[in-house]
Amino acid sequence: MSTDVTPRASTRVAELVAGMSLEEKLAQLVALWEGRGGTGEGGDVAPMQDAMQAAETAFETFAANGLGQLTRPFGTAPVEPVDGARKLAARQRWLVEHTRLGIPALVHEECLTGLAAWKATTFPAPLSWGASFDPELIEEMGAAIGASMRSLGVHQGLAPVLDVVRDARWGRVEECISEDPYVVGTIGTAYVRGVQSTGVVATLKHFVGYSNSRAGRNLAPVHAGPREVADVLLPPFEMAVLDGGVDSVMNSYAEIDGLPVAADAALLTGVLRSRWGFTGTVVADYFSVAFLHTLHKVAGDLGAAAAQALAAGIDVELPTGNAFLEPLAEQVRSGALPEALVDRALERVLNQKARLGLLDRQPEDYADVDAAAIDLDPPAHRAIAARLAEESVVLLSNDGTLPLASPDRVAVVGPNADDTAALFGCYSFLNHVLSLHDGVEPGLEIASVLDALRAELPDATITHAAGADVDTDDTSRIAEAVAAARAAQLCVAVVGDRAGLFGRGTSGEGCDADSLELPGVQRQLVEALLETGTPIVLVLLTGRPYAVGWALERCAAVVQAFFPGQEGAGAVAGVLSGRINPSGRLPVSMPPSVGAQPYSYLHPTLGGASSVSNLDTAPVRPFGHGLSYTTFTHSDLRIAASQVPTDGAIVASCRVTNTGDRAGADVVQLYAADVVASVTRPVVQLLGYARVHLEPGETAEVRLDVPTQRLAFSDRRMVRVVEPGSVRLFVGRSCAEPVLTGEVELTGPVHEITGADRRVVAVEITR
Amino acid sequence: MSTDVTPRASTRVAELVAGMSLEEKLAQLVALWEGRGGTGEGGDVAPMQDAMQAAETAFETFAANGLGQLTRPFGTAPVEPVDGARKLAARQRWLVEHTRLGIPALVHEECLTGLAAWKATTFPAPLSWGASFDPELIEEMGAAIGASMRSLGVHQGLAPVLDVVRDARWGRVEECISEDPYVVGTIGTAYVRGVQSTGVVATLKHFVGYSNSRAGRNLAPVHAGPREVADVLLPPFEMAVLDGGVDSVMNSYAEIDGLPVAADAALLTGVLRSRWGFTGTVVADYFSVAFLHTLHKVAGDLGAAAAQALAAGIDVELPTGNAFLEPLAEQVRSGALPEALVDRALERVLNQKARLGLLDRQPEDYADVDAAAIDLDPPAHRAIAARLAEESVVLLSNDGTLPLASPDRVAVVGPNADDTAALFGCYSFLNHVLSLHDGVEPGLEIASVLDALRAELPDATITHAAGADVDTDDTSRIAEAVAAARAAQLCVAVVGDRAGLFGRGTSGEGCDADSLELPGVQRQLVEALLETGTPIVLVLLTGRPYAVGWALERCAAVVQAFFPGQEGAGAVAGVLSGRINPSGRLPVSMPPSVGAQPYSYLHPTLGGASSVSNLDTAPVRPFGHGLSYTTFTHSDLRIAASQVPTDGAIVASCRVTNTGDRAGADVVQLYAADVVASVTRPVVQLLGYARVHLEPGETAEVRLDVPTQRLAFSDRRMVRVVEPGSVRLFVGRSCAEPVLTGEVELTGPVHEITGADRRVVAVEITR
Repeated sequence: MSTDVTPRASTRVAELVAGMSLEEKLAQLVALWEGRGGTGEGGDVAPMQDAMQAAETAFETFAANGLGQLTRPFGTAPVEPVDGARKLAARQRWLVEHTRLGIPALVHEECLTGLAAWKATTFPAPLSWGASFDPELIEEMGAAIGASMRSLGVHQGLAPVLDVVRDARWGRVEECISEDPYVVGTIGTAYVRGVQSTGVVATLKHFVGYSNSRAGRNLAPVHAGPREVADVLLPPFEMAVLDGGVDSVMNSYAEIDGLPVAADAALLTGVLRSRWGFTGTVVADYFSVAFLHTLHKVAGDLGAAAAQALAAGIDVELPTGNAFLEPLAEQVRSGALPEALVDRALERVLNQKARLGLLDRQPEDYADVDAAAIDLDPPAHRAIAARLAEESVVLLSNDGTLPLASPDRVAVVGPNADDTAALFGCYSFLNHVLSLHDGVEPGLEIASVLDALRAELPDATITHAAGADVDTDDTSRIAEAVAAARAAQLCVAVVGDRAGLFGRGTSGEGCDADSLELPGVQRQLVEALLETGTPIVLVLLTGRPYAVGWALERCAAVVQAFFPGQEGAGAVAGVLSGRINPSGRLPVSMPPSVGAQPYSYLHPTLGGASSVSNLDTAPVRPFGHGLSYTTFTHSDLRIAASQVPTDGAIVASCRVTNTGDRAGADVVQLYAADVVASVTRPVVQLLGYARVHLEPGETAEVRLDVPTQRLAFSDRRMVRVVEPGSVRLFVGRSCAEPVLTGEVELTGPVHEITGADRRVVAVEITR
Repeated sequence: MSTDVTPRASTRVAELVAGMSLEEKLAQLVALWEGRGGTGEGGDVAPMQDAMQAAETAFETFAANGLGQLTRPFGTAPVEPVDGARKLAARQRWLVEHTRLGIPALVHEECLTGLAAWKATTFPAPLSWGASFDPELIEEMGAAIGASMRSLGVHQGLAPVLDVVRDARWGRVEECISEDPYVVGTIGTAYVRGVQSTGVVATLKHFVGYSNSRAGRNLAPVHAGPREVADVLLPPFEMAVLDGGVDSVMNSYAEIDGLPVAADAALLTGVLRSRWGFTGTVVADYFSVAFLHTLHKVAGDLGAAAAQALAAGIDVELPTGNAFLEPLAEQVRSGALPEALVDRALERVLNQKARLGLLDRQPEDYADVDAAAIDLDPPAHRAIAARLAEESVVLLSNDGTLPLASPDRVAVVGPNADDTAALFGCYSFLNHVLSLHDGVEPGLEIASVLDALRAELPDATITHAAGADVDTDDTSRIAEAVAAARAAQLCVAVVGDRAGLFGRGTSGEGCDADSLELPGVQRQLVEALLETGTPIVLVLLTGRPYAVGWALERCAAVVQAFFPGQEGAGAVAGVLSGRINPSGRLPVSMPPSVGAQPYSYLHPTLGGASSVSNLDTAPVRPFGHGLSYTTFTHSDLRIAASQVPTDGAIVASCRVTNTGDRAGADVVQLYAADVVASVTRPVVQLLGYARVHLEPGETAEVRLDVPTQRLAFSDRRMVRVVEPGSVRLFVGRSCAEPVLTGEVELTGPVHEITGADRRVVAVEITR
């Protein structure tokens, strides 16, 4: 979708604004969240939801002056999609008919792992997107998700999460794509393009810093300097704004070095609008305007909170109107806040509604819904979910046991073996909402890993014992699993996380980790299984990387899947059987211990092993690692020019050959190290990547045309530059395993980066 | 000592500088480290010492053009003090006689826990200074240390460490005073005053940021924003400069947000000299100039490193002249660096030498040393060491077992029970140097805790078994300790750290922790002892706070001593017997787990427990906690004025009564919380404190006159201000245990802080 504002729309919006009362204006800047009371369970689906939201106001009262947004009509409680769409159409019809201006509400929904609605296809979690290193597929997924939203009348989806992983303890790591900003940026931009290709607004979250919270605790203060913010945390957002043309951005709850982002004009207006030219809306993360008063305590009351947020650049309060209705009105009426700031936000909101065609709706537009067009889980979507699951399973270690050689007797054990919830992230409808509604069917066909293995290995005798829970200290059932393993030729142990919200899981929003051992007694279970001598294939269904170094060599093989979604069990089973050749690569480092957190592979020399500390922080499996059932040989690294101007491009190519006997996909990874710079730089950084499928014996030439912008950083003046000097390059199997090495000299003056510099590596694959 | 430069000295220095060759100038900016080869052990006493320092150059060759400093003539290998002083005098005589300018070298030594020299009194480690909350005693200790240095001809001591504790994992936590900047600032300033009262230069280290390294790894990058640096890390340095008149500052190895401090003019010159008016010398932490090239990689060679460091504001390279000799000369000769920058540093060095009287020395000044005046361990120093040890033991928990009721049979077990090294920090001569010299006696009378308990409990039958090592996984001897405990009425288990350098210990420089469990199998040992049912008194001799929450209630009592020094065993034994009433208070939080690091009690709301994370970070014992054998009652909190101008002072007083039957000391702690501020502020901060000794039944009135500067912080403009608004106050037994509460309103305009604002709380105790 185009985010341009046409002159005609702009005039129309200006006329509207000029004629609106203050109350009508503010009504466009807030949302109404209906149906929360209907859950009957009191389970939070947003932080402090119950404390923050008072008793429900009747829609007609709340919306009397119009309504900016409707919050989560499908993602709050199970709603039959067609019924929900009809109810939604009725709401819109009422707004068109009964408010003075007749402007429908913009409707938003969560859509992180697919539309967060009952019976909608649930895709793998974002860490799996990162593991796929396949932006094209993510764009397809985005388009599928957008189409589902559009079919229901939803205009805006609250995804993707572009937070760069900085600490594996944080519960929301599963919602992130990678610890590498470029992987986040490319995959995230692809998602935005996909969603917005359907005319639905995507929303970047959480702008910015959220993932960097102290000790990985949710919403804890971010201790980061401006250079880390500029060079690590902001780039994915920059890409999705400038290359993805995203139409909405959600602020981060975080405070960075003492200043909450929700009150930070330098970020919300300076960076986003003045520097990047963003013209869409900035929407508040749920309750974050009020949190300036209640949690951050930088505002004495809701009015001050509203004034700070609006002035900083938040245009729309979500999920309701705690601060932007009466408290903000009072600020304007008292003269404390210029009404022009209200108008600034209002114009952005109305321009977005204009782009969505919402300013000229008639009641008959909402007469009924096209029920036949509503299928939130069509085969095409399931096929995308399956492909993505298949591409994102990461084989961490393998002594040759995988793929399985038709075993007769297989024990499938572990708490996640026969639990479909283990396939889904915390923002899936199933774990986010449905887990609070006992007895409601998922409305999707979902196989557990056990089911899938039974289907995958029809000739094997498969036994099952959970052996333990994900997160209790009950060891009483370990013996049962051990007995099953002992009686089998091979044991598949499926362990990991259970995604949930606010303490209702081991991963997910508000489910942070104090330890990076597997939750509960699962390590004890696996160690007991290992004692049997039966080869153990360990399958990790998790939302974060765990410290499983102890298992990597002792298990026959270790397979990592990051909440692989609705079709994930089949993908895992397919990898085990060999039907699918694993091709996922780690989008995050596998940590050695919780004591080594926070950690990122993007550290300067002294952030890694050194002779000045007794401790090493080296991951047990590095970023970019992933095994295959075939072998890939890399050769002939060619760097087009040994000298490249600081405002030019490094063109590197190499050949990759499938030297094994199975088809498979390699992810060609080009890394760089800036030898000397004016500030400390990472010992290694990913420059570009290319996923390449190769038949046995096939060779491809992979050419990466890397703009020097990829090597930019904030110099001592805090100006983002490319400096002249030597750059070491390598093609590697991971960030820690160089295979082909080279070097290039950047020449000429220090180049100051602008929006005009190309950000994305152009990839060309020639066979 | 006065750091003022007299007009006459200034003229003399200007004349000298004008007449010096470039080589003579640079020679004054470097040091020579002799005798390293003499250790015969190759053990590092500085980071990367062996890699960084080439074969030794003969003194006469190195010093041909003069010599700025001599590095550690007493702290590198065991030297009989009088012999060392004579050799040093000979060096100085040679410099006076054989160099053109005849200027002696300034001699520096480490002196963190007492002069780091053979046979010198070894005082408790800095965490114990913090635990004493007794700046007066620390000033006495500083004067004692200074006197010892002066008696040997040492001019400069490399202490105190003013790094604010930010992460318990860091090995050098034991060298720090507290996690509270005001405690660090007051105690550190007292140390500076003491040392400098003897005419010896104190050195603040490490300016700034070092303690805030990523994941607590030594020298790892600091991820902090400018507000955290300004409001948490810099204030202790500001106090020691402005209130302590310190004459030297050492830079931090750290990089902060990408920029190494050694190359940061904004800090080394902007903050230190332009803002604070510092006129002394900035000396390089060992090898840190070269590290700009070799480790930080922000300089392409040593010359560039030297130029960056000099330009930023480092005046003297330590411990040798890797970068400031030929590489720096070449920078000047080539015109890359103005010679005026060399002169700037040189003037500071020569002015300091002028203040020390070194510019007018004659050969006869170094004819001989006053051997009779050299006693590095006189009774007066030992008495200070004993008092400080006694005041700094912290009683963490006690079920009434302590003080001991004359037990007949006591088992004293644990690896630190009969190990005198366990009493000392890593910068003690014993652990820093002597541990590399097998067979050399300490030259000090030191009792182990076992020895001291035997002396303390002469009527008891005392058995002993180590049971375990500090840091091996050997469990074979646990049974022996268990048997001893079982046979006794009471078991004292003495566990904890062994300080060392670069992996040769569990605490100390280069000995960082990946876990905050007790090292090795010590928890297993203590849990086995607990199983016996014999009451266990756990004594922790450590260099950092460990996660011993599991022990606090299960043990009969837990006693924490932070490397209590030469007289520490007697202090611990005295606390156990009741001869000494414990009065130490925790200067750091006792962490719940390594997973909760980094942590500081000075966190805003969202840094603590909240409903948005499943995890709590609350310490198992808070900052300020410490039990006594008597009881103190606090009453009558009076706030002199309910409204105080933002540039005024909050005068708070309360009464404290010893309501028990033993004499003892309380530490009255006044805390504050800024209710609403323009940036996030800590939920609680220490405002001021007063140590008060009270006889049974005695009452004192404690009056704290708190300048509002204590509530200052960097606002959104990064201007340090006091803002108007409500401040909640309480007197508490710790930061988490309010007893008396009050409130004050700061009124008037935002007050911008300058150096003229009083920083220190005036304390008045009336009985």
